[in-house]
Amino acid sequence: MSKKYVYFFGSKGAEGNAGMKNTLGGKGANLAEMTNLKIPVPPGFTITTEVCNDFFANNNQYPDGLWKQAEEGIAKLEADFGKKFGDTTDPLLVSVRSGARASMPGMMDTVLNLGLNDETVEGLAKKTGNERFAYDCYRRFIMMFSDVVLEIPKRDFDKVFEAKKKSIGVELDTDLCKDSLQELVLAFKGIVKERKGIDFPSDIKEQLRLSINAVFESWNNERAIKYRNMYNIPHNWGTAVNVQAMVFGNTGNNSGTGVAFTRDPSTGEKRFFGEYLINAQGEDVVAGVRTPKPIFELERDKPKIYNELVEIYQRLEAHYKDMQDMEFTIQDDKLYMLQTRNGKRTATAAINIAVDMVAEGLIDKNTAVLRVQPEQLDQVLHPMIDPKSEVTVIAKGLPASPGAAVGKIVFDAETAQKMSGAGEKVILVRQETSPEDIGGMDVSQGILTGRGGMTSHAAVVARGMGRCCVAGCSELSIDEENKILKAKGYTYGEGDYISLDGSSGRVMDGQVKLIKPKLTGNFGKLMAWADEARKLGVRTNADTPHDAAIAKEFGAEGIGLCRTEHMFFEGDRVKAVREMILADDEAGRRTALKKILPMQKGDFKAIFKVMDGLPVTIRLLDPPLHEFLPHTKKDMEEIAADMGISVDAIKEKSNQLKEFNPMLGHRGCRLGITYPEIYEIQVEAIFEAACELAKEGKVVKPEIMIPLVGHINELSYTKKNLVVVAEKVMAKHGVKVEYMVGTMIELPRAAITADQIATEAEFFSFGTNDLTQTTFGFSRDDIGSFLGDYLSKNILPIDPFVSIDQSGVGELIKMGIEKGRSVRGNLKIGICGEHGGDPASVAFCHKLGMDYVSCSPYRVPIARLAAAHVALKEKN
Amino acid sequence: MSKKYVYFFGSKGAEGNAGMKNTLGGKGANLAEMTNLKIPVPPGFTITTEVCNDFFANNNQYPDGLWKQAEEGIAKLEADFGKKFGDTTDPLLVSVRSGARASMPGMMDTVLNLGLNDETVEGLAKKTGNERFAYDCYRRFIMMFSDVVLEIPKRDFDKVFEAKKKSIGVELDTDLCKDSLQELVLAFKGIVKERKGIDFPSDIKEQLRLSINAVFESWNNERAIKYRNMYNIPHNWGTAVNVQAMVFGNTGNNSGTGVAFTRDPSTGEKRFFGEYLINAQGEDVVAGVRTPKPIFELERDKPKIYNELVEIYQRLEAHYKDMQDMEFTIQDDKLYMLQTRNGKRTATAAINIAVDMVAEGLIDKNTAVLRVQPEQLDQVLHPMIDPKSEVTVIAKGLPASPGAAVGKIVFDAETAQKMSGAGEKVILVRQETSPEDIGGMDVSQGILTGRGGMTSHAAVVARGMGRCCVAGCSELSIDEENKILKAKGYTYGEGDYISLDGSSGRVMDGQVKLIKPKLTGNFGKLMAWADEARKLGVRTNADTPHDAAIAKEFGAEGIGLCRTEHMFFEGDRVKAVREMILADDEAGRRTALKKILPMQKGDFKAIFKVMDGLPVTIRLLDPPLHEFLPHTKKDMEEIAADMGISVDAIKEKSNQLKEFNPMLGHRGCRLGITYPEIYEIQVEAIFEAACELAKEGKVVKPEIMIPLVGHINELSYTKKNLVVVAEKVMAKHGVKVEYMVGTMIELPRAAITADQIATEAEFFSFGTNDLTQTTFGFSRDDIGSFLGDYLSKNILPIDPFVSIDQSGVGELIKMGIEKGRSVRGNLKIGICGEHGGDPASVAFCHKLGMDYVSCSPYRVPIARLAAAHVALKEKN
Repeated sequence: MSKKYVYFFGSKGAEGNAGMKNTLGGKGANLAEMTNLKIPVPPGFTITTEVCNDFFANNNQYPDGLWKQAEEGIAKLEADFGKKFGDTTDPLLVSVRSGARASMPGMMDTVLNLGLNDETVEGLAKKTGNERFAYDCYRRFIMMFSDVVLEIPKRDFDKVFEAKKKSIGVELDTDLCKDSLQELVLAFKGIVKERKGIDFPSDIKEQLRLSINAVFESWNNERAIKYRNMYNIPHNWGTAVNVQAMVFGNTGNNSGTGVAFTRDPSTGEKRFFGEYLINAQGEDVVAGVRTPKPIFELERDKPKIYNELVEIYQRLEAHYKDMQDMEFTIQDDKLYMLQTRNGKRTATAAINIAVDMVAEGLIDKNTAVLRVQPEQLDQVLHPMIDPKSEVTVIAKGLPASPGAAVGKIVFDAETAQKMSGAGEKVILVRQETSPEDIGGMDVSQGILTGRGGMTSHAAVVARGMGRCCVAGCSELSIDEENKILKAKGYTYGEGDYISLDGSSGRVMDGQVKLIKPKLTGNFGKLMAWADEARKLGVRTNADTPHDAAIAKEFGAEGIGLCRTEHMFFEGDRVKAVREMILADDEAGRRTALKKILPMQKGDFKAIFKVMDGLPVTIRLLDPPLHEFLPHTKKDMEEIAADMGISVDAIKEKSNQLKEFNPMLGHRGCRLGITYPEIYEIQVEAIFEAACELAKEGKVVKPEIMIPLVGHINELSYTKKNLVVVAEKVMAKHGVKVEYMVGTMIELPRAAITADQIATEAEFFSFGTNDLTQTTFGFSRDDIGSFLGDYLSKNILPIDPFVSIDQSGVGELIKMGIEKGRSVRGNLKIGICGEHGGDPASVAFCHKLGMDYVSCSPYRVPIARLAAAHVALKEKN
Repeated sequence: MSKKYVYFFGSKGAEGNAGMKNTLGGKGANLAEMTNLKIPVPPGFTITTEVCNDFFANNNQYPDGLWKQAEEGIAKLEADFGKKFGDTTDPLLVSVRSGARASMPGMMDTVLNLGLNDETVEGLAKKTGNERFAYDCYRRFIMMFSDVVLEIPKRDFDKVFEAKKKSIGVELDTDLCKDSLQELVLAFKGIVKERKGIDFPSDIKEQLRLSINAVFESWNNERAIKYRNMYNIPHNWGTAVNVQAMVFGNTGNNSGTGVAFTRDPSTGEKRFFGEYLINAQGEDVVAGVRTPKPIFELERDKPKIYNELVEIYQRLEAHYKDMQDMEFTIQDDKLYMLQTRNGKRTATAAINIAVDMVAEGLIDKNTAVLRVQPEQLDQVLHPMIDPKSEVTVIAKGLPASPGAAVGKIVFDAETAQKMSGAGEKVILVRQETSPEDIGGMDVSQGILTGRGGMTSHAAVVARGMGRCCVAGCSELSIDEENKILKAKGYTYGEGDYISLDGSSGRVMDGQVKLIKPKLTGNFGKLMAWADEARKLGVRTNADTPHDAAIAKEFGAEGIGLCRTEHMFFEGDRVKAVREMILADDEAGRRTALKKILPMQKGDFKAIFKVMDGLPVTIRLLDPPLHEFLPHTKKDMEEIAADMGISVDAIKEKSNQLKEFNPMLGHRGCRLGITYPEIYEIQVEAIFEAACELAKEGKVVKPEIMIPLVGHINELSYTKKNLVVVAEKVMAKHGVKVEYMVGTMIELPRAAITADQIATEAEFFSFGTNDLTQTTFGFSRDDIGSFLGDYLSKNILPIDPFVSIDQSGVGELIKMGIEKGRSVRGNLKIGICGEHGGDPASVAFCHKLGMDYVSCSPYRVPIARLAAAHVALKEKN
C-alpha cells in the first residue's frame, strides 16, 4: 500500500484539520477545519506538500500511487457533491489551487472551471438553463489553462477578447452574448493549435493531471522563489494542491460573492466588516468594474444568508481566536465558505485587536504580544502617506528612516535652518550629509540623499532623530551648487515641494497627504506585556539629552551607544577642535582640548541626569579628524582668520589628513593611541560630570567604550591611561563612581581574538555596522552601486546593513561571544549597530545570549517587541 | 641540597658544554666548550638562565643557595687563576656579563674590572708595576658600575672626564697621567655621593652581588624587550650571567687584543681574517682612535702567538663546523680566547661558505641550506648601497621594494619616459602612483612616494618589477605641480640627483655609490639543494611575459597571480576600456569589449608560451572602474574629443563612480556581477589563447580566479557564466583545455564560509593583502599615519602587511583551509598576497598545509629558500 497523499473533505467531515498545515498547506488545513466545524464548504481534496517535494526530487514525476488516490478523491467528491466529473448532463467542475504552509499571495498558479470540454459545456448550459454562463465559464477556463499549463501568455487571448468586444461595440465583459462567447472559444482553441501545434485537451482527466503538474511547478517559478527569499520561507516546504468542487456566484440574482473580516482590519474595531456583489465571481470584485456593497446591506438583501454568515463568522473567530478574513460564495441562495484565514491588518488594528481579545478572554497576554509584528510598529510611531491618496513617484532610494514628510526643497543646512526659522517646512536634499549638516537635518521634515547606504551618515542620524529619510537615491541628479534637483524629467529648484516616504524609499512629486501617528493606551498595555515576556535588555543609541529623553520615554533601559563626536561639532566647540587638529604638538593639542573639556562635561552631566541611574555607554572619539576640518573655501578663510594662520596651512593639514579609505584609516582607538591626550580629556570630562552628580547623591553608571579595537594591545594601552585619569578625578572629588571599561567589537580581528581582548574588556558591544563592512568588504556608503544587482540576482537575500548576515557576520559574533565569555564569565555583551532595531537581528542576538541590544530611539519599541517575540517563541 | 645554579670552567675543564645553551646562554656554553677543548680561556663560572627566571618570579630575589654556589665559584676561580678576590697585593678582577640563548648584541649590561676599591687598586698597581694602568681600570670600573648598577647616566661622568682632559690640555684618554686619574676617581665618587647619597660600595662581594642583579635586570630593560619582540625571542628564556677572570691587553707592549674570523665574512673566501691592536683593550678597538692592524701582521709581530691562534681557529671551525667570530686578548705574551661564536656574514659570504663547506665535507647540503637566511638573498638580487660610502639621509620612508637606486628626480611618468629615452637615469617621485604611471615606473631606477604603505600600488608594482622603492615617506613635501621636493631643509627640482635605499627606506642626498649584485654558481647550487628540501610549491605574481620570464628564471613553478587589469592600461586599449565604462548600456559595453578581446588574447598567449605548460592563475578584473578614467583636465579633454562626447559627460561619469572607500566598493566580482560581459570577454580571450596553443600541441593550464568573493552566490553566479563561455570557445576550436575555476579568499566572510565556497571553488588563493586590510580594518594606503606609533608603542610587533599576523589574520586562513578541505579534500590552496615572499609567512603557509606560495619575481628565490628552511626545521 502506498503512503497517504490525498486528504478528503466533504459533508461527512474531513480527513485533515487546522493542525496539519505542514502537510496540507494553510488553505487545505483550513478547508478541512471548516468542514469539521460543519461550516458549508464545497467538498474536495488536498494533495500533500510531500508530493510536491517528491515531484521535484524525481524529475517532475508523481510518487507511486498518487494518481490512484486522486482518482479515488474525485470519486468521493462526485458522490458527496452529487455531480459527475465529465458528465454531459450535469458536469462537476473543479478548481485546482496551490496552498503552501505560509501564505504566498498570488505567487503561484490556479486553474478554475476545470472539467469543461465541448460536450460537458453543453450539459452545464442545459442544467443551469444558462448558455451564456456555460460558455463564459468555458472561455475563462481555456484562457486560464492555456496561460498556466500551456504557457501561452494571457495577453495573447486578451487581445482577441478585446477585439471581439470592440467589433460588436460593447464595453463590459458581461455584455458579450452566448454567440460571441462561442466564437471566442473557437478562436482561443485556434490560438492553442497555432502556438503549440496541438488541439486543446478535451480529456478532462488529462486536464486535471496537467493542472496539478502546473500548480506544483509554479512553486519554483521565479517570483515564488524571490518571494520565499524575501520572507525567509524555506524552499523545501513545497506547496499542497487543493482540488475542490466549483461553486458559482454568477448564476443569477440568487447568487453572489464576497469577502468579510470579523473585525475592522484598519482600526481593529469589533464589528462585522466586508463587501459583496450579487451575480458575480471573485474576479469581478477584484476587477473593480462594479462597486461592491458594504456587508451590512446583505442583511436587507438576503437576511437568511446574512444571519448564517454572522453565525459562521462568530464561530470561526471564536474557534481560531483571531480576526478572520473569509471568502464566500452564494450559489442559488446557498452559502458556501471558500476560505478563512487570519486577516491582515494595520498596526493600529493589530494592537487594538490583540488587547481587546485579551479583555474578551479569547487569548492571553503572551499571545497578544505575538499578534503584533515588531516591524509594524513603525506605522504607529511615524507619520505615514495616506494610502488613499494618489502619488507620483519620481524616484526610489533606500528606505533609510521610516515615516513620511512633505516640504520645500533646500540644498544646504544653512538654508534649511533659515527657512525653517521662518516657519517653512523643508526637506533637505543633499548628495550626502556630513556632521556639519546636523543642525539643518534637525529642522527638516525629511532628508533625501543621492548617495550612501542604510548606515550612511544621513541614515543613522535621521533614524536617531526619528526623522524620515530616503538615502542613496542614485536615480536623482542633485546639483547642490546650482540648487537643481532632477528626476525622471522633473526638475525642481529651491522652495519647490516634494514628499518622501522613508518606509518604502519613494520620492514623490508635490505635496502628498499624510496621516499622523497616534499612540493609544492599548499600545502602552501591549508594550508592558512585551516587557514581561522578554529576556533581552533594550538600550538606545543617543548622543544628546533630547534623544536620550525620547528613548527613555519609549522604554530604553540605558544608553548603549553615546557617540561623543557629535559633541565636538556643536556651536563654538568645533573651533577648539579645529585648533587641536591644527596644533603642531601635544602641548598645542592639550591647550585646545582644555577649552572643550567644560563643554563636554556639561553634555555628559545633562545626559547622566536624564538617564537617572541607568547605565550610559560612552564611546570615545571615533571618526577621522579630517571630518572636523572645514571643507569649503569660505569656511577655510573664516577659520584661518580666526586662528591667525594661512589658508594654505589649513589646506595642507586637510590634504595631509585626507585618506584613500577613511573607513579603514586613522580613526577609533588609533586616534587615542597617537594622541592619548584626546581620550584623556574625554575621560576627564566624563568623570568630572559623574563625580559632581555623585556628590549630589545621584547614581551615575558610566561605561567607557574604546572603539575600533582589533588587537588586545590597543585596548590595554588606552585603558591603562584612562583608568589613571578616572582615578585621579575621583580622588580629587573624594567620591567613587562605579564604572566599567569595555570595547566595541567591530573588526573581524577583534572577534577572532576576543579571548585575548576580554582579559581587559569588562563589556563587549558589537558594532555590527563596521563589522559588516569589514567582514563583507562592503563600504556602507558605496554599496548602492551594486546592491540592487545583488538583490535582484539573488546573490544576497537582504541588505546586510539592514539585517545581520547570520551565516557570515553572525558566525564572527558567535565566535566573539564564546571566546569572550570563555575568559570572563560575566562579560556584559550587547550590540549597538543599526541592527539593534531590526527584529530578525534582535532575535539572533537573543539566541546568541547577549545581554542587550541598543538601537535608535524610535526603534526602541520595535526592539522590545521583537525581544518578547523571540523569548515567547522559544518558550512555545 | 639546592639545585645546581653555577657551572664552573677552568684549567681542569668545564662543567658545561656547547649543548647547554638553554641553561648557560650562548656565551657561557661556548666558554665551557672552548675550555673543554683545552683552548686557553680565563677561568670563570656561569649562573644559569633559570636563576634569571626565578629572580623575576620572586620579586628580584635569588633562589635559595645561589649565593653560596657563587661564592664557591669565586673560590674555585681564585684557586684556578692564582689570584684572590679582594687581595690587596694581587687582586683578582672579574667581568660580569650577560649571555642569553640567542645573541642580543648590546641589548643587556656588562660590568668590567670588578673587584677594585681603594685598597685593591694599590695592590694591582704594585703587582703590575703600572700605577696609571691600575687607576685607569679603577676609574673605568666606577663609571661602568655607576652607570649599570646605580643608574647614574654615563654622560654625567663623561662630562667631568672631558673637562679634566681639557683642563690639562690633552686629547687622548691615554694621555691622562696617574694623578689625573686618581683625581677623577675622587670626582666620580663625589658624583655618586651627591646623586645617590651613598658612598661608592667598597665591599667587593657587594659589588659582585649588585652587578649580577643589574645584569639580570637588564634582561627586562626596554630595548631588550623591544629587541626580543622584533626577533621573536621568547621573554621567558632569561639570560645567564658569566663571571670571569679579567685579562688585560693593555698592560704594555707584550699585551694586545683582537678580533678574528675563520673566513672572510664579506666574501666567504677561506682565509684567516681579522685585526688586532697591541697594548689595548677591546673598547679601544671599537673607539677607533687607533687603527688596528690586519691579522697577518701578527705573524711577524708575535709568531708564536700567531701560530697558536691559527691552530685554535682551525680547531674551532672544525669543531663548530661553521665560520667563527673570535675575540682574543694577549696579556704579557699569553693568549686568552674570550669568545667564539658563529660569525655574521654578508649574503655572498653565507652562500659561498655554505657551499664550500659541503665540498670540504664539513657539513651536508641541508645544513648548508639552513646556513643562508632567506631575507639575506635580497642582497644578492638587487644593487645595494656601498656600505663604505658616506651618505646624507634626508628622509626615511617604508622599505617597500629592496635594492638601491641613484637618479635624477622626475615628478611624472611622462617626463620619466622622456628623460630615460634620452639616456638619463631617473627616479620617479610622486605623492602616490596609479596604474597610469606604470610606463614611467618601468623606466625609472627607483620610485619614491609620499603616501601609501607596504602594499600600496607603488610598492606592489615596484616589487613586481624588481625595482627599488621607498613608499609612504610622509616627511617629504612633494609638490608635483611645481615640481619641488622638500625634505629636512633640502629642496630639489626636476633633474636634481637623489639616491634611494629600498631595503632600509632611506632617501639620500645626491649620488651615492652602489654595489651591483652578482649571482654565482654557488647561488644556483644552494637553490637546487633548497628545492630538494622544500615541500611547498613556489609560484610568482606576474602580469606580463617579461615578468613571467624573470620569475621562471628565478625558479617559479607557475603563476599564482596574473592580474588582468594591467592589460587594460597598456597603450591603446585603455581607450577601449574607457569607451566601455562610458557606455550607457550592455550593448555599448560589449562593442568596446570586443576591441579589447584580441589584445588580451595576445597577452595571454604570450604568457602561456613563456610558462610552457606550468599552471597560470588568471584573476579576472578586480579594481574599481574609476581607476581607468582620466584624472587630469587635459586627459579628459583628449578623451572627450576622441570619443565625441563632452568633457562634462566624462566628469559626470567619473563623479558617479567616485567612492568614499574604493577598497570596499564596486570592484572584484562585484563588477563581474553587475557587468557579466566584462568577465565573459576576459574568459573568451583566455580560452581563445589557450585553444590556439593547444591546437599547436602546447600544454596550457589556465586557472581562472574570481576575486573578492565573500558569498558563495557570487562565485556560483560568475562561475556559471564563465564555464558556458569556456565550453563554447573549446567547442568552436574542437580542443579540450584542462582548466580550473577557483577564487581568492581575501575577505573575512570568505574564510568564515569557506565550506560553502569550496563547493564551487576548485582552488583557493589567499589574498592576504586584502584579508589583512579587512581583518584589521587597516587601509594599506593609509596605515602610514599611525603605523609608526603602533610599532614604537609596541601595539604591534611588525607591520602586518609585511609579515602575516598569525594570531588574527592567520586564524582566518587556518579556518578557511580547514573548512575548505572539509568539503573538498583535494582543494588546491595557495597564497598570492605580498606575504608570499616573506620568510616568516612562508613558514606559516607551510605549517598550515598550503600547496604553494606565490610572490613577486624577485622574491621567488627567497620563498624557495624559506620553504626549504621550514621543511628542514620540521624534520630536525
